[in-house]
Amino acid sequence: MASQTNEYPAKGYAATSPDSGMAPFSFTRRGLRPDDVLIDISHCGICHSDLHTARNDWGRTTYPVVPGHEIVGTVAAVGEGVTRHAVGDRVAIGCMVDACMECDHCKADLEQYCRNGMTGTYNGKDRQDGSITYGGYSDKIVCREEFVLKVPETLPSDLAAPLLCAGITTYSPLRQWKIGPGSKVAVAGLGGLGHMGVKLAVAMGAHVTVLSRSEDKRADALALGAQDFLITTDKDAMRAAAGRFDMVLNTIPVRHDVAPYLLLLKVDGVQVIVGMIEKMPELHTGILLGRKILTGSGIGGLAETQEMLDFCAEHGIAPEIETIRMEEVNTAYDRMEASDVKYRFVIDMATL
Amino acid sequence: MASQTNEYPAKGYAATSPDSGMAPFSFTRRGLRPDDVLIDISHCGICHSDLHTARNDWGRTTYPVVPGHEIVGTVAAVGEGVTRHAVGDRVAIGCMVDACMECDHCKADLEQYCRNGMTGTYNGKDRQDGSITYGGYSDKIVCREEFVLKVPETLPSDLAAPLLCAGITTYSPLRQWKIGPGSKVAVAGLGGLGHMGVKLAVAMGAHVTVLSRSEDKRADALALGAQDFLITTDKDAMRAAAGRFDMVLNTIPVRHDVAPYLLLLKVDGVQVIVGMIEKMPELHTGILLGRKILTGSGIGGLAETQEMLDFCAEHGIAPEIETIRMEEVNTAYDRMEASDVKYRFVIDMATL
Repeated sequence: MASQTNEYPAKGYAATSPDSGMAPFSFTRRGLRPDDVLIDISHCGICHSDLHTARNDWGRTTYPVVPGHEIVGTVAAVGEGVTRHAVGDRVAIGCMVDACMECDHCKADLEQYCRNGMTGTYNGKDRQDGSITYGGYSDKIVCREEFVLKVPETLPSDLAAPLLCAGITTYSPLRQWKIGPGSKVAVAGLGGLGHMGVKLAVAMGAHVTVLSRSEDKRADALALGAQDFLITTDKDAMRAAAGRFDMVLNTIPVRHDVAPYLLLLKVDGVQVIVGMIEKMPELHTGILLGRKILTGSGIGGLAETQEMLDFCAEHGIAPEIETIRMEEVNTAYDRMEASDVKYRFVIDMATL
Repeated sequence: MASQTNEYPAKGYAATSPDSGMAPFSFTRRGLRPDDVLIDISHCGICHSDLHTARNDWGRTTYPVVPGHEIVGTVAAVGEGVTRHAVGDRVAIGCMVDACMECDHCKADLEQYCRNGMTGTYNGKDRQDGSITYGGYSDKIVCREEFVLKVPETLPSDLAAPLLCAGITTYSPLRQWKIGPGSKVAVAGLGGLGHMGVKLAVAMGAHVTVLSRSEDKRADALALGAQDFLITTDKDAMRAAAGRFDMVLNTIPVRHDVAPYLLLLKVDGVQVIVGMIEKMPELHTGILLGRKILTGSGIGGLAETQEMLDFCAEHGIAPEIETIRMEEVNTAYDRMEASDVKYRFVIDMATL
């Protein structure tokens, strides 16, 4: 039985401490298990979570850490039991590389909420050997085949990468809450997630309004396809918009008061938090009494992620990206912190 | 045209200042408008809102105030255009006596969320003459016929009264979130609202667990029909119950942290706040990411309130009440503040 092949030497970029920054790193990928796929990575998007994890902002980082969970590449080898993918296929990996696949959530295509805990693509713990997972800032990766998605032919690899996190994170709640023609959607925050939220909601047929604190982003919002723009510091405009939206997709990545967005909702309207806002300020629950819904959402399941990739290909939707060389990653992190990117950095892994 | 008949002398109990307590009060009810019904009140339930309004706890009270919005009585006269009710009918009024009836919410049977503001049964402002409305601690009331509900024959008047607020406030979210056979419902808070929540959820076929900080209420919870009892201060029990409930019906009437209840929810499970908890403490929104839903609900629409009365009659459901004389109302308020009532006071208006 040749299920355990030799390990693969790999190179990548890793942080070795909270203030090390990212630097070249050599390591090995495990030999193929029967259901594993080896992928040569061509592109990897940069997510805010990468930066937070590299710097241990959430206190859960095991060093060295190789970030990256917006991964696109080509199948280079397959384990003996693999049936879904073949050498040469263009494929993708998102935020998770394993789950129990046996609990009720996994069986309901909600592997991201696996009751036994899904395995993160980086800084996760392999379910079989307990090793720490390394992500996509790397030339290759080995992954269980169920967690490897197919990239539709018409989706370029660089543009496909950010869909694996920013895309699915916004697509999933839009589907979950049945956004479609006639829906009124407001998007708060116009970064990597927000700009995908606008494009996806528009493609689903919704009337989309971008919420912003100032005029600055109006032209960008309309260019992305939004039909309307609402300045949240304009009290009269906010009052006039009260009770008018089916959904507020809240992608703001910092602590803030969600109450003003709840006031924008219709009865049975929903505010979905997809950003990492940590603790929100005290909320007067009287705001919720008119059947206003506050919820959150985390990425999406495997089937839904594939559905999202196919949807984007079908509708010609892609993120706005800035492609960088691997060695530019530290500069990219600094620029992300300064909100100086429209809207997602993608690493061209050929530069590694 | 005899649409504006003479006013009716009325007597009741009113508060005249935040610390006056309740005392006898004489006033007049308006003459019948064409669509008005005059009701001789037989019973009125006592809601916590009565106490809060009488004492101006919310800073919105106009004095004198005659509380009471769980009203049952008999039609004594009708306006010339009335079609729904006839003299002698046993009828009821809940928390509202008017709304615009023309906005999208009113047209969708959600008069409680009228975009132009529903008119409260007491301390509200009449839409036609601007007068302040007086509630059910009174011998009679005049009300627009659409806001007068029918009391099913098999429902005794004293037991029907608390259904008009405590009943509909818990019935509406159970229906809204499609609770039925197979649903797992947890009820937090076992007072006027909570005990109705238990009875209604059980009648809908749900498996009902009462949440409480201590053992004290176990026997009461089971006697009301709950199948299970969970002590929220027992960390092991709470951990074991995590992710197991479709709904937490939160009826707790004071400020508290709702996070422990969110942890009890399944994916797509919902915590509905129906109590007045004012500002809740800071919430870590990471708890919401697993598609946990936090929302609120306020009473119910007219059609749904009638449906609830019919449901209670059909299933033989009634609140647990303690009937008091009108002059005992101040003592009743004190006992409510001490949580010394199982579970609702009802005033026998024959004692006025």
